[in-house]
Amino acid sequence: MNFCEKCGAPVQLAVPAGDHLSRHVCTACGHIHYRNPRLVVGCVPEHEQRILLCRRAIEPRRGYWTVPAGFMENGETLQQAAARESAEEALAEVTIGSLLAIVHVLHAEQVHVFFRAQLPAARFAAGPESLEVALVAPRDIPWDDIAFRSTDFALRRYLEDKAAGAEPYHFHSIDQRPRAEHAG
Amino acid sequence: MNFCEKCGAPVQLAVPAGDHLSRHVCTACGHIHYRNPRLVVGCVPEHEQRILLCRRAIEPRRGYWTVPAGFMENGETLQQAAARESAEEALAEVTIGSLLAIVHVLHAEQVHVFFRAQLPAARFAAGPESLEVALVAPRDIPWDDIAFRSTDFALRRYLEDKAAGAEPYHFHSIDQRPRAEHAG
Repeated sequence: MNFCEKCGAPVQLAVPAGDHLSRHVCTACGHIHYRNPRLVVGCVPEHEQRILLCRRAIEPRRGYWTVPAGFMENGETLQQAAARESAEEALAEVTIGSLLAIVHVLHAEQVHVFFRAQLPAARFAAGPESLEVALVAPRDIPWDDIAFRSTDFALRRYLEDKAAGAEPYHFHSIDQRPRAEHAG
Repeated sequence: MNFCEKCGAPVQLAVPAGDHLSRHVCTACGHIHYRNPRLVVGCVPEHEQRILLCRRAIEPRRGYWTVPAGFMENGETLQQAAARESAEEALAEVTIGSLLAIVHVLHAEQVHVFFRAQLPAARFAAGPESLEVALVAPRDIPWDDIAFRSTDFALRRYLEDKAAGAEPYHFHSIDQRPRAEHAG
């Protein structure tokens, strides 16, 4: 960022008094712009032993497969966000279940949250952000064409847990930052 | 927000093409400024049946009691954020345990995440954001002077779960928005 969102003057990186990290601080009004991780929320919708997957129509990873997921909006719960993304990307009405996985995607400054979900009726279609949507049997999941590592993690845990007959939650971290940034 | 963080020109509220919500869009360069919920992360540190509480030295809720918690930073995991907040606010080195609660604080556009934690040694002191820090027996928790409803929720679930000998996670939503905003 280059300019203050409040007054429009240039910002510069500085450590505010009492803080320990560098922030974008306005050179005119002093407003401090904090940057925090953003929540991406999705679910693994199941219908009769098959999983609803979307092939992405947008970048990043256009053409690759994922579960319905996207940025959480203000004013909604995590469960509402997960259900909304299924409605938008797969035109599917899902019932959100238990917490499946929380994945820290450190290089992207995101936290991905996945829920288990049920798709009661096999009604779905590609929303504007999807090229196609399909109900896929576990053995047919296109593992080499999954869009994101967090999605891969969530899908694998989903299937393992289902085989084990349990619904635990899983934490995971993915870090593709250049080495120097790890130290801080 | 009033000005574009990229080019400094004025922004106006508009629904971008393909979107369904109003965003701050730059009138000059077209940059879209998304606003998303921020993560607040904390823990309930326990040492020999007592819980580490901090009395806040800063607004909001100066003078009221809370568990160590604060905004998650980029580049850290939820667990690291929770441990860091304990180090900063209570000068306490804690071991983060299981997920305790996720609270949607809808009016504040925040998601609060709480973990169970152990404080192995009774070493702590007030950090710059605390007036005092204390190890408090469950019967002595100052329920009328707890700073936030999310903290109250997390503390009560913590104690109930401990009594029951289980460590489940809990979802909860707090919504103090004016009624009109609920509809959307």
